[in-house]
Amino acid sequence: MKLWGGRFTKATDKNVEAFNASIQFDCRMYAEDICGSIAHATMLARQGIISEADKDAIVQGLKDIFGQIERDEFDFSVELEDIHMNIEKRLTDAIGEAGKRLHTGRSRNDQVALDTHLYVRREIAAVAKLLVQLQESIVKAAEKYNDVIMPGYTHLQRAQPVLFSHHLMAYFSMLSRDFKHLGFAWELADMMPLGAGALAGTTYPLDQPYVGKTLHFGKLYDNSMDAVSDRDYIIAFLEFAAVLMMHLSRLSEEFILWSSSEFKFIELDDAHCTGSSIMPQKKNPDICELVRGKTGRFYGHLMAVLTMMKGIPLAYDKDMQEDKEGVFDAIDNLKFALTIYAAMIDKMTVNKEHMRSVLESDFSNATDMADYLAKKGLPFREAHAVVGKAVHYCIEQGKVLQQLSLEELQHMSPLFEADIHHYLDIETCVAQRQTYNGTAPSSVARQCTDGKQVLATETVQTQQWDKVVSSVYELIK
Amino acid sequence: MKLWGGRFTKATDKNVEAFNASIQFDCRMYAEDICGSIAHATMLARQGIISEADKDAIVQGLKDIFGQIERDEFDFSVELEDIHMNIEKRLTDAIGEAGKRLHTGRSRNDQVALDTHLYVRREIAAVAKLLVQLQESIVKAAEKYNDVIMPGYTHLQRAQPVLFSHHLMAYFSMLSRDFKHLGFAWELADMMPLGAGALAGTTYPLDQPYVGKTLHFGKLYDNSMDAVSDRDYIIAFLEFAAVLMMHLSRLSEEFILWSSSEFKFIELDDAHCTGSSIMPQKKNPDICELVRGKTGRFYGHLMAVLTMMKGIPLAYDKDMQEDKEGVFDAIDNLKFALTIYAAMIDKMTVNKEHMRSVLESDFSNATDMADYLAKKGLPFREAHAVVGKAVHYCIEQGKVLQQLSLEELQHMSPLFEADIHHYLDIETCVAQRQTYNGTAPSSVARQCTDGKQVLATETVQTQQWDKVVSSVYELIK
Amino acid sequence: MKLWGGRFTKATDKNVEAFNASIQFDCRMYAEDICGSIAHATMLARQGIISEADKDAIVQGLKDIFGQIERDEFDFSVELEDIHMNIEKRLTDAIGEAGKRLHTGRSRNDQVALDTHLYVRREIAAVAKLLVQLQESIVKAAEKYNDVIMPGYTHLQRAQPVLFSHHLMAYFSMLSRDFKHLGFAWELADMMPLGAGALAGTTYPLDQPYVGKTLHFGKLYDNSMDAVSDRDYIIAFLEFAAVLMMHLSRLSEEFILWSSSEFKFIELDDAHCTGSSIMPQKKNPDICELVRGKTGRFYGHLMAVLTMMKGIPLAYDKDMQEDKEGVFDAIDNLKFALTIYAAMIDKMTVNKEHMRSVLESDFSNATDMADYLAKKGLPFREAHAVVGKAVHYCIEQGKVLQQLSLEELQHMSPLFEADIHHYLDIETCVAQRQTYNGTAPSSVARQCTDGKQVLATETVQTQQWDKVVSSVYELIK
Amino acid sequence: MKLWGGRFTKATDKNVEAFNASIQFDCRMYAEDICGSIAHATMLARQGIISEADKDAIVQGLKDIFGQIERDEFDFSVELEDIHMNIEKRLTDAIGEAGKRLHTGRSRNDQVALDTHLYVRREIAAVAKLLVQLQESIVKAAEKYNDVIMPGYTHLQRAQPVLFSHHLMAYFSMLSRDFKHLGFAWELADMMPLGAGALAGTTYPLDQPYVGKTLHFGKLYDNSMDAVSDRDYIIAFLEFAAVLMMHLSRLSEEFILWSSSEFKFIELDDAHCTGSSIMPQKKNPDICELVRGKTGRFYGHLMAVLTMMKGIPLAYDKDMQEDKEGVFDAIDNLKFALTIYAAMIDKMTVNKEHMRSVLESDFSNATDMADYLAKKGLPFREAHAVVGKAVHYCIEQGKVLQQLSLEELQHMSPLFEADIHHYLDIETCVAQRQTYNGTAPSSVARQCTDGKQVLATETVQTQQWDKVVSSVYELIK
Repeated sequence: MKLWGGRFTKATDKNVEAFNASIQFDCRMYAEDICGSIAHATMLARQGIISEADKDAIVQGLKDIFGQIERDEFDFSVELEDIHMNIEKRLTDAIGEAGKRLHTGRSRNDQVALDTHLYVRREIAAVAKLLVQLQESIVKAAEKYNDVIMPGYTHLQRAQPVLFSHHLMAYFSMLSRDFKHLGFAWELADMMPLGAGALAGTTYPLDQPYVGKTLHFGKLYDNSMDAVSDRDYIIAFLEFAAVLMMHLSRLSEEFILWSSSEFKFIELDDAHCTGSSIMPQKKNPDICELVRGKTGRFYGHLMAVLTMMKGIPLAYDKDMQEDKEGVFDAIDNLKFALTIYAAMIDKMTVNKEHMRSVLESDFSNATDMADYLAKKGLPFREAHAVVGKAVHYCIEQGKVLQQLSLEELQHMSPLFEADIHHYLDIETCVAQRQTYNGTAPSSVARQCTDGKQVLATETVQTQQWDKVVSSVYELIK
Repeated sequence: MKLWGGRFTKATDKNVEAFNASIQFDCRMYAEDICGSIAHATMLARQGIISEADKDAIVQGLKDIFGQIERDEFDFSVELEDIHMNIEKRLTDAIGEAGKRLHTGRSRNDQVALDTHLYVRREIAAVAKLLVQLQESIVKAAEKYNDVIMPGYTHLQRAQPVLFSHHLMAYFSMLSRDFKHLGFAWELADMMPLGAGALAGTTYPLDQPYVGKTLHFGKLYDNSMDAVSDRDYIIAFLEFAAVLMMHLSRLSEEFILWSSSEFKFIELDDAHCTGSSIMPQKKNPDICELVRGKTGRFYGHLMAVLTMMKGIPLAYDKDMQEDKEGVFDAIDNLKFALTIYAAMIDKMTVNKEHMRSVLESDFSNATDMADYLAKKGLPFREAHAVVGKAVHYCIEQGKVLQQLSLEELQHMSPLFEADIHHYLDIETCVAQRQTYNGTAPSSVARQCTDGKQVLATETVQTQQWDKVVSSVYELIK
Repeated sequence: MKLWGGRFTKATDKNVEAFNASIQFDCRMYAEDICGSIAHATMLARQGIISEADKDAIVQGLKDIFGQIERDEFDFSVELEDIHMNIEKRLTDAIGEAGKRLHTGRSRNDQVALDTHLYVRREIAAVAKLLVQLQESIVKAAEKYNDVIMPGYTHLQRAQPVLFSHHLMAYFSMLSRDFKHLGFAWELADMMPLGAGALAGTTYPLDQPYVGKTLHFGKLYDNSMDAVSDRDYIIAFLEFAAVLMMHLSRLSEEFILWSSSEFKFIELDDAHCTGSSIMPQKKNPDICELVRGKTGRFYGHLMAVLTMMKGIPLAYDKDMQEDKEGVFDAIDNLKFALTIYAAMIDKMTVNKEHMRSVLESDFSNATDMADYLAKKGLPFREAHAVVGKAVHYCIEQGKVLQQLSLEELQHMSPLFEADIHHYLDIETCVAQRQTYNGTAPSSVARQCTDGKQVLATETVQTQQWDKVVSSVYELIK
Repeated sequence: MKLWGGRFTKATDKNVEAFNASIQFDCRMYAEDICGSIAHATMLARQGIISEADKDAIVQGLKDIFGQIERDEFDFSVELEDIHMNIEKRLTDAIGEAGKRLHTGRSRNDQVALDTHLYVRREIAAVAKLLVQLQESIVKAAEKYNDVIMPGYTHLQRAQPVLFSHHLMAYFSMLSRDFKHLGFAWELADMMPLGAGALAGTTYPLDQPYVGKTLHFGKLYDNSMDAVSDRDYIIAFLEFAAVLMMHLSRLSEEFILWSSSEFKFIELDDAHCTGSSIMPQKKNPDICELVRGKTGRFYGHLMAVLTMMKGIPLAYDKDMQEDKEGVFDAIDNLKFALTIYAAMIDKMTVNKEHMRSVLESDFSNATDMADYLAKKGLPFREAHAVVGKAVHYCIEQGKVLQQLSLEELQHMSPLFEADIHHYLDIETCVAQRQTYNGTAPSSVARQCTDGKQVLATETVQTQQWDKVVSSVYELIK
């Protein structure tokens, strides 16, 4: 008979049981369930709701169960539905009466909310470290390749030359926003739901602040109905993950392009590529493609939870059980992706000469020519038109701008003087863009310096999160 | 060393290997992979590309492997990446040289496409049967409850009385469209990709029509690049599944409403409900909530594949490996949901008296009163206004329309005569709606009769699909 | 006072009115609303529900209104909420009493369903023609460029040489599936909902088959509750549109790549590109980028309707008013995209020489070398390994396979003979892939021939649809 | 000829022009475009890049144009593509040469980014005020109805009695998180992109910090390539909007349920409801249904931008033009929804007596009975079982728990004593749940008090945002 079966006259259909059970995936949260129960039992005893002896038996029993699970000696049962019932049943089998008192003043509705908050918080801390590590790889690469010039693109057409480091640091900026996004997810996850009961609070004199402190939560929920039916922290995490993957999908696209025979800008390490079962010459950037493709699954998980939550009434509805699998899958894939990308950037080969050489044969310096004229007094719009015609002339002649003679140039505009060729040099083009966030070496150096400052701040944050998380797991030791 | 590792100088990073591997989920398609390889090897021998002896060794070796997997004696290896390499490696270990000839004229790109087509086709056949079964339960219930009148709703406000059977049969219609949708998915899945090679076809004189016939495919792909990069059949299946779940989410919403204390229209069987860990009185319609909630995951899977396919160039990209997990999950959940819903409808209790009684105290017959006046010559818009005022009058007086005296009524419009009270009877309201698809008993009886005709047609279709599918698996016997 | 305001004591809040109104977008369906009303009124008269005189007044009045709208002399009013009320009110103002009889036996719930079915059917016919036109452009281009060889890619790495026409025809295949998908959408749209009333049918002796025939519908709805709450045909159209855009997003990605300085495979016509406000040299493939980007909006529209329909009870809910704007936007954007893509393909320049030349410097023929060895008896897996090492050797030596001497080759495998160099020729590589759907010229020619057969069939279908649609609009003439 | 047309030899195709143009929707940002240009021109003059006289002409010219647009005297032209070109062209027509100097050191890539940042920031400030206003309505209602007890639900089954105010305040908590989410969107929007040029910065000595200060931005972008290709702030706003709408969809579902004949908990004001064109009695909660349905469109907009950004390379791609329409639509709908919901809550009628009365006939106090036994020493799990059986007994007897005699009760457990009936009183049930966030009047009063503190903090924030925004528009005065 189910633990909740008092009013029922018939057993649950087996199919229903299997469909309904969550133990297949929520077993992942055993450590959180046990920590939460230890905190709950300890508080119950402090408040005189259960005896000290019962509390001691419960805590020891739970620690034993933790050991069993860690040693893979615990058989999870679908019939017992979820991680909560599996553990409570085993506890009661082991310690008797006292075990039946553990659920006093608690409902699975607030219990599962607690477990999931703890779990998400733990994984935010873990993901944060990997995110910082990837950002570190980027800064390291930016400093290492600070003399590499490449074509910068808009519309995948060559636009203006940029430092390769500048290009990489754009991703650093994106990831820094992701880190802030993760902070928002933490803020929403860092709220303590236990004590909300099924929905309305409980009739026991629970000390919720004490439980919150024991589990190192920053905040209690203000409203018990909200506490059991809030999944915003899960959505916030999935939002963070979706946007991060979107950023990585862009980097993936670029790595795929750059690894092609047509671009040849970089070569990924053999250890990060795979071959073909039929074409012996192939070296495929599979990881990049997978990350790009997996972006879809992240969007899907976000959409799944948003859809699930749409239009369901307060307080808890069973629909909400659907909140976990997507998050778990997102966490697993994210950790892989972040780890591998850091290694991939560390180990890739950058074809400096090739990148530089292609700039000799294109029009990436056309803007500089227009700026040159504008600086000599021609309104920018007219300068733009002059250079547009010059480009058209070059295409017809099979030349590039720097190959035009001063005579040819002066024919187009009398403002051209001998120094024009200096300003068309690719190195000059890059060096001239000294605006705050421009591509000039001085600006990129500043970005790297500031980036390391950002990393220092982020590292302090990850350490704080880590400390919070590891403090919780002290309870089981 | 990987089977594709000839040109590589370094081993794959372990993280990359794990991230890259698909064996964790594509192992599900072992039967399809083996059937496909048997068909391929047989054709190779017929065309003289491999010897009969090699073919025989391959076929027997594959059948042995099938037996091992079925008996759970096969260890899948992540290092071997996918189901194809796992089986090919084992085959070669078992039969030697001949095994190395199996991959002649084939690439994993067309091989995985073949496996997935076979798998999706098989599951379409399986899902189709469960869908028909659910439709049967609906018709059966519609016939069983053909004398139950309930309030029909628009905007969740009582609108007009309808037959409970009529309400149920609306879902029959939805599911019939889903069945057609499934037929479209079958049509796209029923195309044979093998022979496309990596992307361009092969230099061997393969007999693709023969392979198509052996595997009972309706059509060959017209273009090899399309064959390896097409995932439309997967999207079509996920579209079908998303819309079907949307329909079930609506039925779920209604079952949840009807099971509430406020509606009390039906009671689900104990075997299909669960209780609460804290509130002893609860009997929750969990299954309905889960199905409603799982709708999100189906939308998510659809969105995931659509996103994955967006903007990737021809032909095969590794992104496409992301096509499977969502489909597999959708299939599993769909089978559960369809099975349980059929049983739930079979076993639910319908509170005929309560449904009927609530109609005595509302204004569901107001349209009939307006129609009455319109039929006496008052333009409908004016009749509508008269009844609107009558309703307002009733609300103030605490009455319903059938309680108004003829005098009161004639005060509102002289067109009212003694027969008005007959036309306000709920039974009359229902019986009068005899339009083709209206709620009158005669119309609903027709719907049931026609519904059974639809079921007969669908059943023939499912049998044809079944026969196609089982014919394929004959190859392993 | 609203036409439905009888029972209300207060006027609608102005904000509510504006939020609630749909006239801003449903005014687009004025022709459909008028045709539907003409068919309805005609049937009412035939059934003796209204007089012939009233019918004549209504029909003439509606035709007048149609003229006014066409001549832009009709002011739509937000206060009158929607296209139905706007037209009915104007009709009543013009013809008096008779106008108030038009709504007999009808509800806005079935009326809007009818209008939308008619509208979607009309636009399916229009989109179908543009889709066929794009397919025609593709076949035309495939025949025009049938001697152009390009590198075929997997993982964006050069894989095997293919005919440019073969590559194009892969898109033809995708679009052919889209055409079938559109047929499924038509099938669901081609159902007649009028007569369902608000939800339950009506008490009038309506002749629904007659209305169906007048409006050239293939089928009546079987169930009135389904008729007013079904939006599957809209979802089916959006699914079609999403998948079509996904296909175009892939083509867009390729056109963008091929237009880059790195690929230089094609050049789009000036008329289909735009420039930069700052960089004078830029010629950007904006259209391709826009189409790729707009894919997102199509996915969004699909998701919007799926989400909207999730979990709402029968029959009509106001949520469903949200079904239109996305479809309208999808139709508009689709027509643009299809039209421009056909022109873009017609006018693009293909750089045959460049495509061919890049194949001299890569390993696209490596599979052919492995096939060569396999045909000489080496198991394919071993042949693959030999060629893998040959590729590695070439990379170190700065050579490609066809530059290896017979001596070097025989050092790798004694099976190499003098004819190997013939088999490494790019032309041979292409010509050898003669499998049914391979890239050999003969196969591609067959694809084009069969493609024209497909086009003929599709054209017949579009003509039938066109005839159905134009027959409806005869009613207003 | 286009302003960028120098290198082109052919005019743009008309269809392409129309498809490509954004003026239809970006004209909305005219004030932002003008403010941005004033700040840019002022800075150019300060840096000596243009003359003071040119600057003065530009600023005056722009102010004139602003006036023309405000007075609806400005014709936007599709040929001029976007708001930037429309304004620049008009400016040049009006002031000549100086106008052509405005675009110095600027690209449309950073210009449109600036406009959109300004626009989103402005609308965040506007939405924030409406959000706070809705939260105020909720607190006001919570205080007004602080003596109303209703059934609290889980699984839409009655669970435990709660204060109506408690239920409302759950939404207050959700909206408070939304306010924080909005703060995150502001943080990302509050970054200044101008000076990034097309992608790489510019060769002019721009003073970006000065522009940032003039436009009251909190931060400059660190990297120019990121500056032109970042759309995270738009995604963040759409995420906020999607989650807020999800919250409102839940409230909508509840208002719809509560307005039904079955629940009858509240009645919405006539001004916020609409009627039926056919059923005279109907009073439909259309607004609630629309808001619930519109949730789909918000999810769709989020999905659209996420999909659009997936896998596109740096820096700017035309795909990104697709970032605006969804945000604009979201803003419009959000403002309506927030405004109407505040009014709806202010004016709704709460049926206190009916809510209270239904609690007499159900088992909402079952948990209290179990808690009673647990407090007397019975382990909670056993208490739960006893009460489960009591409920079952009651259902069979047609009673509720409070109707059981002490004798009957003691037959079930000897622990029951005379005081049990006190504890089964609904008022006691509510009053006993005094945990921090429970439903007891004292707790709910605390929630309201704290809520007003939250409102005060949020109000300070909205005022700061307001000040930032209005300071920008000072530039045009």
